Parts: sequence; structure tokens; C-alpha cells
Amino acid sequence: MTTIRDVSKLAGVSVATVSRLLNQSGYVSKEAEIAVMSAIQKLNYKPNNIARSLAGKKTAAVALMVPDILNPFFPEIARAAEDAAAVLGYTLVLCNTDNNPDKEKKYIETLINKQIDGIIISSYTILPEQILALQDRSIPIVVIDKSFSDYPILSVTAANRHGGEMAVQHLMSEGSRKIAHISGPSHVHASRERTLAYEKACRDLPWFMPSLIGYGNFNVAGGYQAMKEIYKQHPDVDGVFAGNDLMAAGALKALIELGAAVPEQVKLIGFDGIRMDMVYPEITTISQQIYSIGKTAMDYLIRLINNEPIERKNYELDVELLRKATT
Amino acid sequence: MTTIRDVSKLAGVSVATVSRLLNQSGYVSKEAEIAVMSAIQKLNYKPNNIARSLAGKKTAAVALMVPDILNPFFPEIARAAEDAAAVLGYTLVLCNTDNNPDKEKKYIETLINKQIDGIIISSYTILPEQILALQDRSIPIVVIDKSFSDYPILSVTAANRHGGEMAVQHLMSEGSRKIAHISGPSHVHASRERTLAYEKACRDLPWFMPSLIGYGNFNVAGGYQAMKEIYKQHPDVDGVFAGNDLMAAGALKALIELGAAVPEQVKLIGFDGIRMDMVYPEITTISQQIYSIGKTAMDYLIRLINNEPIERKNYELDVELLRKATT
Repeated sequence: MTTIRDVSKLAGVSVATVSRLLNQSGYVSKEAEIAVMSAIQKLNYKPNNIARSLAGKKTAAVALMVPDILNPFFPEIARAAEDAAAVLGYTLVLCNTDNNPDKEKKYIETLINKQIDGIIISSYTILPEQILALQDRSIPIVVIDKSFSDYPILSVTAANRHGGEMAVQHLMSEGSRKIAHISGPSHVHASRERTLAYEKACRDLPWFMPSLIGYGNFNVAGGYQAMKEIYKQHPDVDGVFAGNDLMAAGALKALIELGAAVPEQVKLIGFDGIRMDMVYPEITTISQQIYSIGKTAMDYLIRLINNEPIERKNYELDVELLRKATT
Repeated sequence: MTTIRDVSKLAGVSVATVSRLLNQSGYVSKEAEIAVMSAIQKLNYKPNNIARSLAGKKTAAVALMVPDILNPFFPEIARAAEDAAAVLGYTLVLCNTDNNPDKEKKYIETLINKQIDGIIISSYTILPEQILALQDRSIPIVVIDKSFSDYPILSVTAANRHGGEMAVQHLMSEGSRKIAHISGPSHVHASRERTLAYEKACRDLPWFMPSLIGYGNFNVAGGYQAMKEIYKQHPDVDGVFAGNDLMAAGALKALIELGAAVPEQVKLIGFDGIRMDMVYPEITTISQQIYSIGKTAMDYLIRLINNEPIERKNYELDVELLRKATT
């Protein structure tokens, strides 16, 4: 591998001169610049961007903004992002915006003022224009859990639509013939995609009725309520696809209370793949591979920080069926 | 209420001069200083410390360092601390140290370098000397979940010892006659206190045996394992005090699998009061009033930041019995 030392030797200048040029951090004569650039091209030298961006920087820090720290999904994303950041020499600070656009703006201003190197944003409400405005101020941004087609914005999402199809397909192949759905908030991109997948797969089937869809607000209590209401109208339901794992846990509680045997009488599947080891029986789910999302988002963010070439588009990560005891 | 305007009038100087003096942010003549201080005393003027510390500061920020973001206890603390910070005009950043002393040090240096206004630290391993060194550098610090008697360190803890006594007492008053304990790590202050309370209450009773104490490492899998082992040796156990809620959830899973009826045959109590609504049946616990801890710690931190008089000692908050379905 070519090093900065090889470049300095061939160019006939000191390592410090090469470094000053690469870091644009001091005077370098025109002659030296030409010699160095020519040596770099001859040797096909790729400066170590990471080392370069960190050189002389005592406190490289990036931030992750999340809308709901109490949903275990986000601490798990944070854990992964933090690991990836640590490997690359960055510390990660976490901000919980409570899904409040004002708080979100305040956090962003605080972070910029503290000279944060880049931000990973997860937000149910942020607009593409806000991201573009930040990018115009040269703040590297990666969005997770949401994508903006038609905008030059780098985002990382899970294959929510495909995952929703997989969930319904799995219930059907396990023998379910009347499948209910508990949906999350429709303003949440990932939630909407999952519900659309359910509707597309089921709405033309003979048993389908709109009252098989309940609303669970992405939390345990909401999943519990929705399941009770669906069951009252449809005691013959034999499969439930909940739009996230928290709602699935609430649905499971309701089914146990209603005396419906899981999975013998009703099969149940969630979505996300958060740590649910405290729930018994453990719930089958479509796993987002949360760790990969956090790590991928952080890797891309640090590439943006280092001005490495990377297309600003949505990167969709695969999901997988995690079969547990409820199907 | 006396205002800065009243002070400036009585002292015969401009409001800007009073402000400069209070903020120590520019030249004030000796004469003006004496006139202002005398006016402040005559009027018994209490400068609005919060407004004062925030004046001209666009980005007041404090940090919360936690050892394990995946334990729901810490996101809940963060949520409370963030609410308290927002009311007082501060944003809160969160750092997960993964219970790693090196990461801890790196985070502290990063935060200081970013001119953070103060830090709330929760750490299983931090030493009093490290806190004192930070205080010597004028960094306001509040420690939670751990206390250092004999050191001038401000900490906020729950009444862990008393809570442990309450847990055992509750099981006994519900009829338990042979009570097991699942302990957390002995290097964690709160964990040790709870186990000591169990030992003190039970070790002199005729049925007590050391093998009634299992080790569960503060997580679900550990609680599950410990419960299975205890039950193998003591199938007549009729009460279980788990040192935290995660271990209690693991113990509940094990008891269900073992066919032990909860609470009819075995009564179960946890500790912490984290959100456990995804567990069925819901588990009785000794609640730390997590929200109060986060809020109290933040209020004290901001008092330290504003140089308000407050004794640097441990503030212990009450715990309470939260009775659910397992006793």
C-alpha cells in the first residue's frame, strides 16, 4: 500500500508539506503542490481520509437524533451507530426529539453551534427542504427510517414494503385464512409502507373487510386495544400482522386474556426485530436487522464527512423473517 | 418582584452595567460595582440565575452519560432529564458509555471540549477521584444511581436498601415462607444494596440457605437461568425477589415454563419500575420513581451550573411498592 511517505519521497518534499497540502492547512509553494499532486497520481495514492479528517482533532463527534428514545428500536440503533463511530474514531451523542419539530430545530442549532461533524436524523415529521437547507450549510446528514425520492438526500431504510408482504405470506403459509392488521401512525413512513403491503396482499381476497384493520399507534397499549376491538367483531380471525413489535406484544396480551390459543388458534407476527426476550411466548417478527441500519448509516455519514464519493440516494436494507413461538 | 431595572435605578448606573457585573462579562468601575452590590443588598434582589446563565447563550447544553442504553431504565431517566432540561432552556445530549471506562473518559473529554455546561453521570465503575478532578476543572457534575459518602459529590439515588426490605416484607405479608433472591452484579452499587437488604432480612430465618441466591447479571437471560437453577434445588420456593425488573421478567418466563403458577404457587417481585407493559402477567415491583430521579438530577445540575448554594451530598429518593399481577 502506498503511504504519504512514498509520496513525499517521489515529490522531493517533506511529509509535513504533503500533509499541509492534503489538509489545506498552511502554505505550500506552487512548485511543491505540483510535485506532490503529480506524485499522488503516479503512485495512485489514496489518502487515508479518515486519518486525515481526524488529524489534530481531539474531539470528533457525530450525533444521532431520534423521535422516541422509549421505543427500544432507537436505543438499539444508537448502540450500533455508536460501535461504528467508535471504530472510526468518533464519539456519538444522542438526542431525543420526542417527535417535536421545535425541539428538533433547537437540537440541530445546538449541534451545529457545538461544531458537530455530522448528524444522523430519524424523524417522523422532518421535511426534505429542512435537510437540503442543512446540506447547503455543509452539514453532512444521513436520514434513517424514511426516504425522500427525487431529492439528493442520503437515507437508509429497511425494506418495509417487502417485509409487509413477507409477514402476510408467512401467516398464509402457516395456514391463516382470515388475517387482521394492526397499523401504526399513517404519518410514519415505515408504518405506512407496511400497512400498504397488507392491504395490497389482502384487499382482493374474499374474507377481507376494512374492519380487520385496527389502529395501534406503534405502542403496547395501542396494540392491546386494537386487538380487543378486532376480536370482538371477528372472533374467527386466525392471523394477526402487527405493524411493529410493541403493538404485537400488546396484541399478544389481549389474545391471552381473550383465551385465544397462540399460535394454535391465532398466529401472530410483528415487525422490527427489537429485543423482546422479556415477552413469553416470544413473538415471530420481520427483523429490520437494526444493527446493520445503525452501522450502515454511520459508515455513510463518515464518508460524507470525509467528502468521499457516495451517491445521495436511499439505500434499502433487506429484512428477514425471525421465526419464534407465535407462528 | 425586584428587577434588574430597579437595581440600575437605585445604583445610578445603566442596566447594561449591572448585567456586565452579574455576568462578569466586561469592565465595570470599582465605584459602579460598589453601588450595584449595595443596591442589590438593599433591594434584596435575587438575580434570575437561569436567565442570567442563558443570556446571550444560544446553545446551552448538558449531557447525560449512561452505562447501558439497552436497559430501559436509562432511556426513561433520559426522558425525564430531558423534560427538566427543556423547561430550563437547556438541550440534553445522551452518551452511552457501554460500561467501558475508556469510552467514559473519551466522552468526558469530548463534552468538555464542546463546552458542555454540565454532566450527569451514571457509571458502574467511575471513581470518586475522577469526579473530584472534573469538579476541580469547574465542570458541574451530578452522579445518579451511586453515591460517594465522605466526598463532596452531589448524587441522587433511590432508597435501594429500604426498597429491598420492602420487597421481602411484601412477599412475606403475601404468605411466602421460602424466598429466593436473584442478584445483579456486585460491583453495581444499587444491586449490592438490594442484595444486602435481602440477606439481612432472611439469613437468620430457619429456611434460609445460600443456594436460594442466584446470580442474574441484571438482564432477562440471566434472570431466566438463575430461576431455573434455584427451582431445581428448591422446588418448594414460594417467593422470588429479583434485583431488577429485567431479571424478574426472565424469572417469570422460567416459572411459566416450569409450570409453577404465578402468583398462586410462587409470588414474584422485581425492582426499578421500568415500563414493562409488554410482559404478561405484569410484574409487581419496587418502583424507583425513575422520572423523579431524572428530573431531580437535572434540577440539581442546573443549580450547580448557576452557582446556587446546594450541598454536595447524596440525595436519596423514596421508592414505592407498585403492586401488579405477580403477588
